[in-house]
Amino acid sequence: MASWCIGIDLGGTFIKFALFGREMSAQASWQCPTPADRGADGVIEAMVSGGQRLLSEAGVSAGEVAGVGIGSPGPLDLDAGVVIGMPNIPGFDNVPLRDRVGEGLGLPAVLENDANAAALGEYLAGGGRGVRNMVLLTLGTGIGSGIIVDGKLLHGAHGIGAEAGHLIVEPGGEPCGCGQRGCLERYASATYLAQYARRRIEQDGQASVLAKTLRARGDLDARDVQTAAGDGDALAGEVWDRAVRYLAIACVGLCRLLDPDRIVLGGGMAKAGEALMAPLQAHFQAEHWTLTEPKTALTLAELGNDAGVIGAAGAAWETFGGHGRADGPGMPAARAE
Amino acid sequence: MASWCIGIDLGGTFIKFALFGREMSAQASWQCPTPADRGADGVIEAMVSGGQRLLSEAGVSAGEVAGVGIGSPGPLDLDAGVVIGMPNIPGFDNVPLRDRVGEGLGLPAVLENDANAAALGEYLAGGGRGVRNMVLLTLGTGIGSGIIVDGKLLHGAHGIGAEAGHLIVEPGGEPCGCGQRGCLERYASATYLAQYARRRIEQDGQASVLAKTLRARGDLDARDVQTAAGDGDALAGEVWDRAVRYLAIACVGLCRLLDPDRIVLGGGMAKAGEALMAPLQAHFQAEHWTLTEPKTALTLAELGNDAGVIGAAGAAWETFGGHGRADGPGMPAARAE
Repeated sequence: MASWCIGIDLGGTFIKFALFGREMSAQASWQCPTPADRGADGVIEAMVSGGQRLLSEAGVSAGEVAGVGIGSPGPLDLDAGVVIGMPNIPGFDNVPLRDRVGEGLGLPAVLENDANAAALGEYLAGGGRGVRNMVLLTLGTGIGSGIIVDGKLLHGAHGIGAEAGHLIVEPGGEPCGCGQRGCLERYASATYLAQYARRRIEQDGQASVLAKTLRARGDLDARDVQTAAGDGDALAGEVWDRAVRYLAIACVGLCRLLDPDRIVLGGGMAKAGEALMAPLQAHFQAEHWTLTEPKTALTLAELGNDAGVIGAAGAAWETFGGHGRADGPGMPAARAE
Repeated sequence: MASWCIGIDLGGTFIKFALFGREMSAQASWQCPTPADRGADGVIEAMVSGGQRLLSEAGVSAGEVAGVGIGSPGPLDLDAGVVIGMPNIPGFDNVPLRDRVGEGLGLPAVLENDANAAALGEYLAGGGRGVRNMVLLTLGTGIGSGIIVDGKLLHGAHGIGAEAGHLIVEPGGEPCGCGQRGCLERYASATYLAQYARRRIEQDGQASVLAKTLRARGDLDARDVQTAAGDGDALAGEVWDRAVRYLAIACVGLCRLLDPDRIVLGGGMAKAGEALMAPLQAHFQAEHWTLTEPKTALTLAELGNDAGVIGAAGAAWETFGGHGRADGPGMPAARAE
């Protein structure tokens, strides 16, 4: 019986590879830069040779591997295993990524979108361990999400669900790149939080320490806002609090529809830790209905950038060999090439 | 092998009973007034004797019945089969409704909340036939909802999910009875739509035909608003359109998170038919992202007030005997006692 599954997480900057046993403890892992300049063929070649290298360094033969799971940016056609397009890596127009990587490795393969793979990773081995219903919100450049309902990833009817970043939290609000107005992402992602801070500084925020940062560096980011807010800067505090309140409103919506055990917060902004969680919890309590106390716990993600590769392998276990749940992530440090 | 399941839909005004075969075609049905003045004991007695009458009139013995499904207002503890409380029927404080009705009928029983039962009914035999992912929105005094994900009712981790009426669609908006602000129910239910119309008339709407209705009858309802809007009354049109837009925003949120095949609209306001669906479709298109064309269809419910009793029986089939899906509702007209 096969003892291993391979996870491959295709990102705009790195491709991560890891080999997992049934208990989701990684036997081996490594990563290489994504050869984005070599087009789809070059990227797929790197994925196949990287998978082979993973096996050979771990001393595992393909016959011992149940399958390979691939996490990829999208949009994807999950049923067909096809990448429809990829904003950050040119050349991926309707590419059958699943079958090409699977055939290259001589293994059955399954494709999952990167946000869902990260949610599955946190569910199996991170912030969602021990529960059956979970949402992962990844707060970064945008806001990604993945939803686990009764132990399964929610894909929806057309594979385009679990997009919590595009919940409308402000009707008629700021225009979003997706064509909607008032999306959560437009109010609570790192990108737009920093953009809003710059706008507020222009309006009436020259007294803020953020104005000084902006003048000195020509730019500022969400981390600057969080730091300045923590240091007591009024404008930064207002900007940070506004983003967190919208996030709390979206969390209330997730509870009303999905009633998860946990909402797990990951991504760059979640590195703020308590500076995020304390005001988030306060706003969540304030916006939450009073019919029952909040029953959904808000917690931090645990796997960082490894969530995707763990979840990719988890998808392979679910598809090709059943899956186990770990007591801990057990992810050895990735080695750069 | 058992050939039948019983559905019982406990409402504030009527209790409905129906007997269904595996294909969800009703063999028999009837209803009686809910003896709300006789407390939990009286209501349970009516449910048991009503179930017995259903069987005897259909000439079916208890041995031919796989089980009974009960749809009930709540809040409920589904796992325990207990009614925690019931706003419209006094005396239901922590009453083990499932087991008392089941024991009275000598049949295994399952309890489901009324909104979920209605969604399951529409899924099995109404507006959700032929798909695997569906949301039912019931637009009435409040806004109820039920969610089907991949063929199963979504209950959430604590049995309090699928409350689309309490999605926050206007941050910091009107206070809702649930303790939140800006709930969908507060903007798009029949009750609040009429309340908002009265407020607008007081403000600057004396020229509206609705002001005349209000003076003549001392009150007005959502139907008056819809009719006046259809007749070209400006204020009524504005009030109707505002409610429909908030409904569309909630539908966009349902698509972003759940990506259903269909959102099915039921309840009193859905009797407006095209007067609801045409502007809802237009607002839905306008608020929907442009990354893909809307893939979720918005459709009218088909089963009316029978959805709950059909879904209750469907829950019994799912729990005690697998379930079939009908080609049509096949519901004979209920006979009043």
